[in-house]
Amino acid sequence: MTNKYSYGVNPILELLEREPDTIEKLFIRDNLRSTASYNIVNAASNHRIPVAKVPESKLTDLVGDVNHQGIVAAISEIKYLEFEEWLSDFEPLPDTAILCLDEIEDPHNLGAILRTAAAAGISAVIVPKHRQAPVNATVLKTSAGTAGLIPIVRAVNLNQAILSLKENKFWIAGLDQTAESSIWDQTYDVPMAFVIGNEGRGMRKKTGEHCDFLLSMPMQNGVESLNASVSAALICYEWKRQLIQRKK
Amino acid sequence: MTNKYSYGVNPILELLEREPDTIEKLFIRDNLRSTASYNIVNAASNHRIPVAKVPESKLTDLVGDVNHQGIVAAISEIKYLEFEEWLSDFEPLPDTAILCLDEIEDPHNLGAILRTAAAAGISAVIVPKHRQAPVNATVLKTSAGTAGLIPIVRAVNLNQAILSLKENKFWIAGLDQTAESSIWDQTYDVPMAFVIGNEGRGMRKKTGEHCDFLLSMPMQNGVESLNASVSAALICYEWKRQLIQRKK
Repeated sequence: MTNKYSYGVNPILELLEREPDTIEKLFIRDNLRSTASYNIVNAASNHRIPVAKVPESKLTDLVGDVNHQGIVAAISEIKYLEFEEWLSDFEPLPDTAILCLDEIEDPHNLGAILRTAAAAGISAVIVPKHRQAPVNATVLKTSAGTAGLIPIVRAVNLNQAILSLKENKFWIAGLDQTAESSIWDQTYDVPMAFVIGNEGRGMRKKTGEHCDFLLSMPMQNGVESLNASVSAALICYEWKRQLIQRKK
Repeated sequence: MTNKYSYGVNPILELLEREPDTIEKLFIRDNLRSTASYNIVNAASNHRIPVAKVPESKLTDLVGDVNHQGIVAAISEIKYLEFEEWLSDFEPLPDTAILCLDEIEDPHNLGAILRTAAAAGISAVIVPKHRQAPVNATVLKTSAGTAGLIPIVRAVNLNQAILSLKENKFWIAGLDQTAESSIWDQTYDVPMAFVIGNEGRGMRKKTGEHCDFLLSMPMQNGVESLNASVSAALICYEWKRQLIQRKK
């Protein structure tokens, strides 16, 4: 899924220093033994970047006949935006909706959410900078090439970001299966931020307290929760349904 | 995910003969050499059942200190129903909906669809007997333990099954992104069968021709299709939304 590579000891050390999150994977020649290569593998490990030891021929396959010095990095095609920067440039309208993902861990879920959000016309997906599935090859595959279509915005602290959104005209709705009102009981004619909780534990308590209202899905057969990407899709498209109704 | 085992040469030969689809996996002692074990491995291979060669101690771990004769089968907890049998016992009502899956290949999608269908109160999920992701450990995991909550019905020929459904009061709606009307444009107050196409190629042409109407989802940003489990969720819950509205 990646078609961009960086190579050479110093460029990659610099990349690891400045933008480690853009590195999807490192390829290192299997017989490379140097202090620099040791430092690179170490830094990669700190940033949880996968490292593959490969023969020289593999590196040439990736970047061609260049002086790669035994080290190639696969660069993510995805550009993240930083929350403060994104928010300062963004003008929320009554027809605007964004998603806030509260530590989604499964890359299949993240990929499906990015795809649905793009399809439904969601303006941005806010993710926490840490404890969140990275946009890796599985995410790109599940998103069917749609992962780069709408901004993925990273916030150091999601709860803080939610408070900033509230100060900037957004209404915050959290998906919570214990909520009394369903996603069909509310009208979404103001700028909306929909918060989707983690797959296992749902939304964090504190995050829930920041929400203006909580929404659930009616469920039968003793099912206690829905897949996170399904919950996200249902709220994105209920918002969309109301938007289309209003414009008729 | 499995907690049921069968063991011994003859019981397993019989199971392979009568109900091969209930076998999730075979465990065979690594030093077993006999005509019977050869026949079992052969039959398992014909039915695409995975076979693991394991030490004696592993077999004892699975079934305890019994005379397993070197062969143990892990039995699926999921009970499939056969289409004709299920249909002859089923009385469709105006509030009934079922899903027909047209060769869903990804176990994550199948698991998520079974979970959503159970939650939305769908009465059954019809799957083709062949070319369909089997209900394996990944499906059970993605379904979060909900895979057994509603009947999974297998049809030898899905198109034939759809014709039978039409003769039995069902209206057939296929999800097709080229359709002009959206899932919100129709009223679902008759027994409904919703057809979800394969992840890659969508619904087969012939299957589409059997549908009473086709439904799409509005999509933006150049996105051409949604994840199959997302499409299934959106139609299940639109049906559910209308049902709740009607009963108010």
